[in-house]
This record gives sequence, C-alpha cells and structure tokens, in this order.
Amino acid sequence: MSRSPPARIGDAVTAIDTPALVVDLDALERNLDLMANAIRGAGIALRPHAKAHKCVEIARMQIERDAAGICCQKVSEAEAFVDAGIRDVLVTNEIVGAAKLARLAALAQRAAVGVLADDEGNVAELSAAATAAGATLDVLVEVDVGAQRCGVQPGEAAARLAAAIARSPGLRLRGLHAYQGRAQHLRTADERRAAIADAVRLAALSRDAIERAGLRCPVVTGAGTGTWQLERDSGVYTELQPGSYAFMDADYGRNALAPEQHHFEHSLYVLTTVMSTPVRERAIVDAGLKALAFDSGPPLVYGRPGLAYRKASDEHGIIDVADDMPAACIGDRLWLIPGHCDPTVNLYDWMVVVRGERVEDVWAVAARGALA
Amino acid sequence: MSRSPPARIGDAVTAIDTPALVVDLDALERNLDLMANAIRGAGIALRPHAKAHKCVEIARMQIERDAAGICCQKVSEAEAFVDAGIRDVLVTNEIVGAAKLARLAALAQRAAVGVLADDEGNVAELSAAATAAGATLDVLVEVDVGAQRCGVQPGEAAARLAAAIARSPGLRLRGLHAYQGRAQHLRTADERRAAIADAVRLAALSRDAIERAGLRCPVVTGAGTGTWQLERDSGVYTELQPGSYAFMDADYGRNALAPEQHHFEHSLYVLTTVMSTPVRERAIVDAGLKALAFDSGPPLVYGRPGLAYRKASDEHGIIDVADDMPAACIGDRLWLIPGHCDPTVNLYDWMVVVRGERVEDVWAVAARGALA
Repeated sequence: MSRSPPARIGDAVTAIDTPALVVDLDALERNLDLMANAIRGAGIALRPHAKAHKCVEIARMQIERDAAGICCQKVSEAEAFVDAGIRDVLVTNEIVGAAKLARLAALAQRAAVGVLADDEGNVAELSAAATAAGATLDVLVEVDVGAQRCGVQPGEAAARLAAAIARSPGLRLRGLHAYQGRAQHLRTADERRAAIADAVRLAALSRDAIERAGLRCPVVTGAGTGTWQLERDSGVYTELQPGSYAFMDADYGRNALAPEQHHFEHSLYVLTTVMSTPVRERAIVDAGLKALAFDSGPPLVYGRPGLAYRKASDEHGIIDVADDMPAACIGDRLWLIPGHCDPTVNLYDWMVVVRGERVEDVWAVAARGALA
Repeated sequence: MSRSPPARIGDAVTAIDTPALVVDLDALERNLDLMANAIRGAGIALRPHAKAHKCVEIARMQIERDAAGICCQKVSEAEAFVDAGIRDVLVTNEIVGAAKLARLAALAQRAAVGVLADDEGNVAELSAAATAAGATLDVLVEVDVGAQRCGVQPGEAAARLAAAIARSPGLRLRGLHAYQGRAQHLRTADERRAAIADAVRLAALSRDAIERAGLRCPVVTGAGTGTWQLERDSGVYTELQPGSYAFMDADYGRNALAPEQHHFEHSLYVLTTVMSTPVRERAIVDAGLKALAFDSGPPLVYGRPGLAYRKASDEHGIIDVADDMPAACIGDRLWLIPGHCDPTVNLYDWMVVVRGERVEDVWAVAARGALA
C-alpha cells in the first residue's frame, strides 16, 4: 500500500511531484551538527527523539554525531528502528497490555530497550513480559515535572515506584524521565526559564528521594527543542531528548530566543503546487488537511511575501494573496514550512532529500503510521 | 512500509490492538442503505466521495447499492480505485502539470475518468494529455456556488469555459461541478437551506448559460452529507457526491437536523487504550495527533459519560474525568468518535471491520497517503 516516491535521485528539484515532503540536506546537517557540538563536552548524553523524523537515515546521522541512541513513543516505532540496526532505543511512554509488552520484551533481546512507568500495576506487567522473554528492560520512572500529562508526583511517590522497579525480576531501574512538554512552546525565554527551573528542582527532588531509598538513579532524561540548553546546564539532567531541532517548524519558530540560544534552521518543507487562481486575491494549492498537520496552525509560505496560507480542506489549501504583491499563477510551486513537523512527517511515505537544486536521495519514512 | 493489521478475522473485539480504526459494519451498512434508498427513485445519480473512506471494499458496497461510480480528489486516489476494478471515477479537483495529467489520461484508457477545470490554460493542458494518450477525459466546469475555493464565476464565465472544453480534442464536456462545501457544516437547517438555495440558483444560471451557447450540460454534480437532500430535491442537480454519510463524525453530528432529514449513525471509531491515570481527574490514552485529525475538534468518547477528550500531543490524548463519574483505569479501552472522519481515516493502513463482538474483516485503506 505504500506509494511511489515523488522523485528519483538525480532529479531536478523542479521535477518533484507534489505535494511532497522535502528535506534541505545542508540545513538538516547544520542543525544536527549544531546540536551535537552544543552537547559534546557537557558531560551528558544526546538521545534525539525519532518521533519527529521516523526515518532510519536521520537516526543514523544522529548516531554518527555521537547520539547515545534514540527515543521513540510506540513499540512499533521502536521495532522499525531496531529492525534497521539501531541498537539503543528508549520508548518515552507507558506501554500497556500483554501483547504489546511481549513485543517490547522481544525487542529487548536484540537491543537495549528502555520504557517508562508511572504505575505499580504496570511495573508488574513489564516484569512479567521481560521475564517470559528472558530479557531485561530498562525502566525509568516518569515523574510529572509540570507537563500535567503522565507521570507520578515528584519526590516520595517517584521513590516508591523506583523501589518497585528495582525489586522486579527482568527490570533494571535506570532513573527518571522528567520531560516538561508544556515549557517547550512558552514564547519568551523568561517563561521557559522559569518552567524549567521548576522542572529541574522537581527532578532533583525525585532523584534525591530515590537515592535516599538506597537505589541508584544514574539517568535523568528529558528536554525538547524549546528548552534543551536549560536542562543541559542544570547539573541534574544527564540526557537530552530534543527531536524537532532537526527540522524546526513554524511553531518552534515563534519562540523568542535569548541571545545565547542556538538558532536552528527550517530544513523541512511541504512542496505544493497552485492548482487554481479563481480570483486575484486567492490561490488554491494541492496540500490540505491530508498533507499538513494543523494542530499548531497553518504552514508558512517560504520566500513568497504577500502569500499567506489561510485555511485547509481535505486536499485544498487556500492562500490569500496581498493586493500589492505579485499574483500567484497556476503551476507555481510553493514551499510551505509546516506548523508542526512531527504529525506532518507522519502523513508521508517518503522524504525527498535535496541539496541545492538536485534530489540527492529519497528516504522512507520507515516508522510512518507506527501507532501501536 | 505498511504496518501489520491490528487484528485478524475472527478475533474478539477485545483483542484488537490499539490505537485502531474500527468500523461497525452493521451501522455502515445501514448508512449505505439509507442513502441509496433515499436517492433511488429520485431520477438522479449517487456518486459517493471516496476521499472519506479510501477503501476499495466500501466503494464496492456503494456500487452494489446502485452508485454510478465514485469521486476522488487526487490522481493517485483514482489510480488506487481503478486498479481495484472501479470503472467510473470523477476526480473532483483541478489537476495541474504534464506528469500528473499524463497519469490521469492513462487512467482514462482503462475507465471512465472525469476531472474538473476552472481555467482555459488548464483545459489546453488537459486536452494535450488526453490527445497524447489517445484517450477521452470527461471534463466538468467547476463553478463557485458559494464555497469560495476553486471555480469560475457562475453564468457567462462558466459558459465560456464550457465552450473551450467542448472545442478541445480529447475532452468531452460533461457539465457542471457545483459543490457548496461551506454549507455542509452550517449548524441550522435554515442556514443550510438558504446557502443551498443560492447554490441551486447559481448552478441553474450556469447551466442555462451553457445551453444558451448551444452546448449540452447533462450533469450538474455536487452536494455533501450536510445538504444532499436539498440538492436532491432541487430539480437542478443530477448527481450527488456525499462521502461522510458512510461513517458520520463528531462534526457532522453537531449539525441540527430538520424533522424530515435522515439520521446517519456513527460507524467509525478510533479504539484507544488508557495507558496512565496519574490523578483521578485525568486519564491518558494512546491515541493523539498521529491517530486522530483535530481540524474539527477533539473526538467524542462514546458510551462513557463523564469522560471528555480535551487535548492531544503526538501520541497522547488527555481525557478529563468528571468528579462524580467512575474513574478510568489503566487498560480501559475507549471508543472515540473522530472529529473529522476523512483525515482521520488517512492516518491508518487498516480498518478493522467488526460485527457485534467479532472482527468480521480487515480492510486496507488502499488510498491512504494518495496525495499526488
């Protein structure tokens, strides 16, 4: 059921069929280098989140740049990466149910596999699955450091769950997962700084409670593209999980950066074609709700001032054309910067990888649709 | 790259892996019957929109119930259905560019293929592609009857474009495409009635202008699940294109219906599992932005009063649990009614087809990701 790629290696960029997910390889490499260099020497690990790209080739580029492994959010995502030879995968999620846990434990026979827990009953399920497979699962206590999503409360509750993990056959207590997802898109540097200061404090409190209970807590992992420098410099986090930095997107672009913060580039685009210009002030493109995620707003139109993507239906995008700017013409190709990269990537079977004006490669989105 | 199905034929519903797209076959059949019966005898054709289901098996069920053919929105969608033996496909969109048009024309060698046009330059491109392939493309003038998306203005502009089509080799003028997309989700029956009264008037005006120019206009096609009875009874439309009626979704469910309107049932669900209950008032499920489309709001939780899906991140859904209602437990399975069926279906490789408590079939979403 997978579709043919929208381009072939060696094609001119002008020959890419649309809509297509296109990666600017120079910009991607610069983003990967920037992050690797910014963490190298800090004495902590980079474990990029592969939910953003779902692509084996990009995971390999990250590992070549000293990443300790990758993060995923689903067992089937982890399977796609382990099948491709990635040897260290952390599933940053709770996994529930005997069938899924059997698959996770089977994966741990072939790779270092970690998973989160925030419930004692789930720890018992994890232990049963690992024991049945004769495998060892690394388990991290998910602690809620302000995201208000999953996770036990910081402090003693984290230590109690850590103790349950430590005494469970087949499980190895690795430490804490302390991701402050809500802080990533706070718009000012001050807001993000305040939120992460809280998260660091709560993570430290939880780590200390675990160690007071006589357990080891070697790993404190978390952070995202919006805040990673704060966790890096916290003295508490030992591992960072940013994902979107590889691509950037319109929503991360709206974060105001402090002077010392790193500027990642947009490296991910949806290439679209104008298919109708019924009136001067409106152009219709061939990328709509099935070609772009809209949870963080519409995409930006790159390099065409006066054109604004206003509204989508299933397979149409409505572009407003400003009065005083050049009109759009049928057949014009527009480069859209997605509002949110992760769910946009998940809509495509292929990424067309361009360097300058040429298609240098075509990569499968290997973990596209890996929901289970 | 396609994933394994989340269930096998004969499985109990309780064994379906989550998240999964699940179709209630009894409800689907009742919806298909209801629409077929409501149009049979009206002297007009039903051509359901397959963008909603992207599924060959459902297209066949519609054709067994006297549908004249199906609608698609992309060439690659049309290819998926023609490859599966569907012999009459209308692409309800403008198709631009020589490569895509060559594929469309090739398809017209194997099936009756229609397409829309709203521009003379595009008509010339269509004609060149059809001529090169030695095929005939059916072409309909898209006229803007209030949707403010694609389409020429009603009346003389429609007649001018019809004349251009009629004199172009390889093209056959079939009539008018007059879809009022904006009317579909107007919430009151009166608002929808007023919008469609306008659309009918503008469609008739355009048809009359075409016929005054000495051309035939046998087809006036349009309508959706929100308004189809109005177009059916208009005396102007000759063909209806509803798609969502097969599944219904939360957004169509918010339309207030007049007494004489038909009530379609929800037949499409996303089955999800509770994976974390960190506090009593919050449960976290395994279906987020990559398992559900959110352009028309979050899904509804079916059959569990007191649970409300509030917010999604990539692979998490946050469910609010009312104080006075039973708590959610880890492992609970929830049936979600998607906000918008079309882009939700497009996230899945498979539909699990259940009758009562058993999995009766597993259908491929054959045109999933068919963007080009």
